[in-house]
Amino acid sequence: MEALKSRILSSGRVLEERILKVDSFLNHQIDVKLFNEIGKEFRRRFDKKRVTKILTIEASGIGIACITAQYFDVPVVFAKKHEGSNMDKETYEADVFSYTKNKSYKIRVSKNYITSEDKVLIIDDFLAKGSAASGLIDIVTQANAEVVGVGIVIEKGFQEGRKIIEEKNIQLESLAIIKSMEEGKIIFEN
Amino acid sequence: MEALKSRILSSGRVLEERILKVDSFLNHQIDVKLFNEIGKEFRRRFDKKRVTKILTIEASGIGIACITAQYFDVPVVFAKKHEGSNMDKETYEADVFSYTKNKSYKIRVSKNYITSEDKVLIIDDFLAKGSAASGLIDIVTQANAEVVGVGIVIEKGFQEGRKIIEEKNIQLESLAIIKSMEEGKIIFEN
Repeated sequence: MEALKSRILSSGRVLEERILKVDSFLNHQIDVKLFNEIGKEFRRRFDKKRVTKILTIEASGIGIACITAQYFDVPVVFAKKHEGSNMDKETYEADVFSYTKNKSYKIRVSKNYITSEDKVLIIDDFLAKGSAASGLIDIVTQANAEVVGVGIVIEKGFQEGRKIIEEKNIQLESLAIIKSMEEGKIIFEN
Repeated sequence: MEALKSRILSSGRVLEERILKVDSFLNHQIDVKLFNEIGKEFRRRFDKKRVTKILTIEASGIGIACITAQYFDVPVVFAKKHEGSNMDKETYEADVFSYTKNKSYKIRVSKNYITSEDKVLIIDDFLAKGSAASGLIDIVTQANAEVVGVGIVIEKGFQEGRKIIEEKNIQLESLAIIKSMEEGKIIFEN
């Protein structure tokens, strides 16, 4: 998606240890107009999939998922990372390892909000080693629902996330795929 | 807002200790169509305010803020509760006390994303004792920007949040105001 790639080049910044900082438009400040374009592009790429629900993970997936859901006319569910006092007792749970924070955490979704009838599109801001996406796929599988696709805004193509998802025979669509970020220079795949 | 009040009555549940559980449409599963109506209503109520930015707090404010921002044609900024490895060093910070979790935490916004030119609309899902809203107002004040209003989806009218915000001479608009939840029965103001 050209508008996204241009924006990453103009506003993104590569920090040490292969971190891409895009908080001016993606995960702290949010460019809602760009999100509209992202949402339309996900609709185009998953148009045939009869999506019934979009699943994401707090916090930075929520905005993208909500804007995108308008183009599919479906509700969003976001997996929770933090225990709240009013979470349902009956939840699907999965472990996710955060490489940025170097620790694992549990994500939870109430059993009420994904059912075996659902065709779930998973949406997230980043794909790197695939741990969050795998956790979300795990939750959908526990619910006996179907994952019809994974839609990612920015994929770090030099990490193994894509391999993990494609091995499960799930359609993965990333709107920008970064081939390398060496010496602070962002190079996209094709 | 009648559609919202009906939905709270049909889908909300009162838990012990005055907690209103609305996770079937507001803060776990998200009814994006209802959020569109909420966004339009916020636009109507703050139409004259020349809003330049919407500020909210992760996680459950993000969806409402993003959908609402479409009707104002402005970006969203969400305050972060959790330290991330790629947060700017220069941040505005405020302390928020969570009565549900009985502890206080810091919220942070990068100094890059609110400037003295901004007219900020604060959006959140709940108003109870006003601690989160006060923290967000504090951050906008630190940036020498103007808070042009606070828009809340559900206000617990029996708690002191409204008083705290109105004492600062800020327009507060809550789309549903709950007068009482005693014995599990939800009664709205007017």
